Amino acid sequence: METRVCRLYGQEDLKIETDAVRQPGPGEALVKVGRGGICGSDLHYYLHGGFGTVRVSEPIIMGHEFAGTIAAVGEGVENLNVGDKVGVNPSQPCGHCSFCQEGLFQHCLEMRFIGSAMRLPHEQGGFREYLTISADQCIKGSADTTIAELACAEPLAVCLHAAKRVTLKDKKVLVNGAGPIGALCVAAAKYHGAAEIVVVDLFDKTLSVAKEIGADRIINLSTSADSLASYSENKGYFDVVFECSAAQPAIENVFQAIRPQGTIVQVGVTGNMSFPMNVLVGKEVNWIGSQRFHLEYAEAVNLISKKAIDVKPIITDVFPMDSVLDAIKSATDRSKSVKVQVDFE
Amino acid sequence: METRVCRLYGQEDLKIETDAVRQPGPGEALVKVGRGGICGSDLHYYLHGGFGTVRVSEPIIMGHEFAGTIAAVGEGVENLNVGDKVGVNPSQPCGHCSFCQEGLFQHCLEMRFIGSAMRLPHEQGGFREYLTISADQCIKGSADTTIAELACAEPLAVCLHAAKRVTLKDKKVLVNGAGPIGALCVAAAKYHGAAEIVVVDLFDKTLSVAKEIGADRIINLSTSADSLASYSENKGYFDVVFECSAAQPAIENVFQAIRPQGTIVQVGVTGNMSFPMNVLVGKEVNWIGSQRFHLEYAEAVNLISKKAIDVKPIITDVFPMDSVLDAIKSATDRSKSVKVQVDFE
Amino acid sequence: METRVCRLYGQEDLKIETDAVRQPGPGEALVKVGRGGICGSDLHYYLHGGFGTVRVSEPIIMGHEFAGTIAAVGEGVENLNVGDKVGVNPSQPCGHCSFCQEGLFQHCLEMRFIGSAMRLPHEQGGFREYLTISADQCIKGSADTTIAELACAEPLAVCLHAAKRVTLKDKKVLVNGAGPIGALCVAAAKYHGAAEIVVVDLFDKTLSVAKEIGADRIINLSTSADSLASYSENKGYFDVVFECSAAQPAIENVFQAIRPQGTIVQVGVTGNMSFPMNVLVGKEVNWIGSQRFHLEYAEAVNLISKKAIDVKPIITDVFPMDSVLDAIKSATDRSKSVKVQVDFE
Amino acid sequence: METRVCRLYGQEDLKIETDAVRQPGPGEALVKVGRGGICGSDLHYYLHGGFGTVRVSEPIIMGHEFAGTIAAVGEGVENLNVGDKVGVNPSQPCGHCSFCQEGLFQHCLEMRFIGSAMRLPHEQGGFREYLTISADQCIKGSADTTIAELACAEPLAVCLHAAKRVTLKDKKVLVNGAGPIGALCVAAAKYHGAAEIVVVDLFDKTLSVAKEIGADRIINLSTSADSLASYSENKGYFDVVFECSAAQPAIENVFQAIRPQGTIVQVGVTGNMSFPMNVLVGKEVNWIGSQRFHLEYAEAVNLISKKAIDVKPIITDVFPMDSVLDAIKSATDRSKSVKVQVDFE
Repeated sequence: METRVCRLYGQEDLKIETDAVRQPGPGEALVKVGRGGICGSDLHYYLHGGFGTVRVSEPIIMGHEFAGTIAAVGEGVENLNVGDKVGVNPSQPCGHCSFCQEGLFQHCLEMRFIGSAMRLPHEQGGFREYLTISADQCIKGSADTTIAELACAEPLAVCLHAAKRVTLKDKKVLVNGAGPIGALCVAAAKYHGAAEIVVVDLFDKTLSVAKEIGADRIINLSTSADSLASYSENKGYFDVVFECSAAQPAIENVFQAIRPQGTIVQVGVTGNMSFPMNVLVGKEVNWIGSQRFHLEYAEAVNLISKKAIDVKPIITDVFPMDSVLDAIKSATDRSKSVKVQVDFE
Repeated sequence: METRVCRLYGQEDLKIETDAVRQPGPGEALVKVGRGGICGSDLHYYLHGGFGTVRVSEPIIMGHEFAGTIAAVGEGVENLNVGDKVGVNPSQPCGHCSFCQEGLFQHCLEMRFIGSAMRLPHEQGGFREYLTISADQCIKGSADTTIAELACAEPLAVCLHAAKRVTLKDKKVLVNGAGPIGALCVAAAKYHGAAEIVVVDLFDKTLSVAKEIGADRIINLSTSADSLASYSENKGYFDVVFECSAAQPAIENVFQAIRPQGTIVQVGVTGNMSFPMNVLVGKEVNWIGSQRFHLEYAEAVNLISKKAIDVKPIITDVFPMDSVLDAIKSATDRSKSVKVQVDFE
Repeated sequence: METRVCRLYGQEDLKIETDAVRQPGPGEALVKVGRGGICGSDLHYYLHGGFGTVRVSEPIIMGHEFAGTIAAVGEGVENLNVGDKVGVNPSQPCGHCSFCQEGLFQHCLEMRFIGSAMRLPHEQGGFREYLTISADQCIKGSADTTIAELACAEPLAVCLHAAKRVTLKDKKVLVNGAGPIGALCVAAAKYHGAAEIVVVDLFDKTLSVAKEIGADRIINLSTSADSLASYSENKGYFDVVFECSAAQPAIENVFQAIRPQGTIVQVGVTGNMSFPMNVLVGKEVNWIGSQRFHLEYAEAVNLISKKAIDVKPIITDVFPMDSVLDAIKSATDRSKSVKVQVDFE
Repeated sequence: METRVCRLYGQEDLKIETDAVRQPGPGEALVKVGRGGICGSDLHYYLHGGFGTVRVSEPIIMGHEFAGTIAAVGEGVENLNVGDKVGVNPSQPCGHCSFCQEGLFQHCLEMRFIGSAMRLPHEQGGFREYLTISADQCIKGSADTTIAELACAEPLAVCLHAAKRVTLKDKKVLVNGAGPIGALCVAAAKYHGAAEIVVVDLFDKTLSVAKEIGADRIINLSTSADSLASYSENKGYFDVVFECSAAQPAIENVFQAIRPQGTIVQVGVTGNMSFPMNVLVGKEVNWIGSQRFHLEYAEAVNLISKKAIDVKPIITDVFPMDSVLDAIKSATDRSKSVKVQVDFE
């Protein structure tokens, strides 16, 4: 049996090729991939050949946000049946290292994350028609959920994990940046009972998605005279900030608008950046990083399946597999897109 | 009755003058000041006329770290007697603003902090022979405690507050910077049962004080080939860091040496500074500011009085009141001094 | 000016009498009482002359759950106007004792709780036409809220306080007992995002109110073959239990149905009672008492006012002031009533 | 190869018999048992044939508190060598059930606890000369630690687990009952920085052990006019209580002496018992069960090995294996013994 795959050979060098697919062995499943979302790290791989110290140094099949349908199951797989819709959890911690034993699986010293160039050999990804994988990685969604929605489980898991690092019930929340992660942080904050959710970004399109997914107020900092200044009085307004932009000007704004002993959850990421240390100290701000997820992947599939969180608003474009380069191009235009997906069927 | 005072008129313009002292009214006490410690903010006031947006814009009597002896008490003061040794708590929150009502007294919107130029009119300080003040601000130490030690209660309170923001029992702790605050963070971490305390600085003198006050290991990063590199393996070693240097190179070191989900308590302070955002996110570091104190002032006096914490090692120099300029000069030389005190008796 | 009052002289000795009402002084308000709810402690006062060591040992005007309309305000009262609808917070901690200073106001050593016979002299209550009281105790509701609803703010505050002692988001919750407190615990658990709420009681009437206010499932243990047995498998099902019955058989059920490390919030109260200590230990159950409230009273008025919680379903009967004895009689019949109110207008 | 074993056939029917011992297979170790401690459950097995629903319904080798020396290791065992002194962790959770997956290993649905009659077939225990067991269960102590001390690791682990369920630093602690568990709770509370530790019991002997291991004050409630009454003023004195007696009169005392929002950790266990529900509610007491341990076993071996906790004071008697019945008899006399050990060498 054969499958077409999207294999990246280096910067701006992506080819659609055909590989063999093996039948699922004991404990495995064959997934017919339906949809895959393009993530910021995918863009870095394609546009720059990597980010920071992470480099694409051997061919890699892209994609870690994907979902599909069970096409076959191997021996001993009891909780999956042919035809089941599943999200595929890309996180594969070793279970044995010191961090796994502490329950900090997202910090596994031997993490094999699907579609990631972080380690050598790279972990091959999910932008392909068929994939054989451990059945444990396949999380079943409900029959009335679309594959497109399930392909959003991965970024939603990232945001559910970020949401878990802080208390949200009845809190005033600022989401800084309205890309896919910002939008899903809005959804997660709403799900956890935030009292008020304000979102800022530089584009009307992304802000309208944030509004649709649950923001109480959206502010376009590029066009509106209305800035965050009013939230800075009396030492600041917001209890919690999800910082999803990793943009220098945003950091200054966020520190002005957060209240004493408020918490900034840093979800967006870049390299070195400047920040106002005197405000961190003076307001006793809690600035906490959030990275990946563990149990939250299955939670994400579950919340999507039972319609507790509607992820559909973030999907702004879909391209067929043959147009994957158009999909990548579309995903780079933040003024027009939030989450761009590729259709592999 | 008269008192001599150390009054600062602006940058490098300090005069010893004579003022009248009023007798204590109801609820007040007259304190014969014994010792005052020189703090970094005092240095900024004298050397640069302020720091950041805080400027010495009217004459101010310096000093917020001081202790003395009760010389007289006003009507209705029952818990103090003439001759009692007291530390004077410089923190005077309003008790009524929204932050006070939440119990976040250190973030009081109307804080009047003794010896601070933060507000107008400035709050006059304690570098003087006599001071009349609310008896509530006078915290009684034991008879066998020296005034010199009680004058360390204020910086110790800062460190006890920082220690409260994190769990220390059985934790591996790095203290970055061995000035007075760094040294007292060592004492606080030891008091709270840290498993291991490593201190780094650039000077042998300050490090030797850190050792004497409780460090398990000291590292001079300027002269030793032994750096923090060995602590950076396997994603980092320390559970908790007290960052007391606010120095750019130190921030990089700290982020390398902290383990996933470890906590950096930022006690040192400066203006804008660069940091590695990818490490904050990738390791899910908790970076939390710590500012001033509230109940910790009385706790500090209590711990000093019952010899649970010995602050004496940090006092490296004492100058008489007439030599206050020499004291300031001495305090600016980090290679030779930790805490410099002025003797007002 | 005069007011009629419901004054209890001892067991089953309640008289409606006429007293003078003074005009509000500085900081005070005159409240025209509209509705008052009958609480279990009111029943104990009337039927048994007290409970435990608390005895009605001097005449007391009954009532601590009440609301009304501002009829006049004293000098300096700025946040209240004539005609405003207000709930009256019966909790008056001293603000100075050691517990108040720790923020544990509900444990005030000098608590003066309106309508309570706990201390001597007793605090006179709110079952009357007019009451002059500190304006600080009067919490303003929205114009479109009824006085009847505001009179439920006090028991709702009790339940919001109980809800705060535990984490409820996404938790499986059992509410044991469907009287007024049980019903409002259902509302509080739903407001805090419980995943599932099961309520048990012995009466269909109270259970139907619990269902209307938010229960997912109701079980009548007296008539249904369906008991809690199915929830006891695999060491138990519920994460959180609000125990509102203080009934011996219920305690056994609750310990069977709670899961390891689950939390029982004890809201109902009685004297000595037997419990299975081996289950408390073996499952590492957290059994925590919850008593009264502090800031939760204003939160209750606020949540009622903005329709975040609808308390109307619990009000099963209303009697005019002249029929207060009928109201009390009605309140004792748990098979027919949940919350009985008296109308003072 | 052969070993003698202490096998219980039912109530008061204990025989010393000879069994075969197999050589250790891959991943296993052969332990030459040195000492075993007698626990309350062992007494129940011998004296009453069980406790509650747990019955000795087939022959069982007694003993779950024991330590020894490695006599041989199987293939692939790298961290143990012949001659190593080890404590044997009796706790063997399955690792796969829902509680294990949550990290609540002590609540494992398939727990196989060495020397326990809780399940069928019973898990055979460690009162024997030789035992072949998984090397993972053997926790290595330091060379300068005695086998007698290592045999105390199991009850110490119970107390370290109890200590983890509460905050102890600077807290006022009451330990109720000074048997082996009470004494080791004193040690654990001291290790965690309790400000003050008061112990009550009915016997001078056990209290003297509690004093030796770290109590600040001991009170014999049977002979002293000095009771807990003085600790009951102003709503109570103690922040934390370790209730290790499971005795009815003690429960009343404890509830009087605990302060509002204080925590009672229930370590002692019995069947049904009466308690003052009005105090649980009125003081908002946290009453939390504590059961067994997980990682705390290795921590106990480590703390004993590095002399951070000295368990030797609790060992009041030692009997040779042939006198195991005398050991049991001795252990039942609380007036004279704390921990009685059997010597198998």
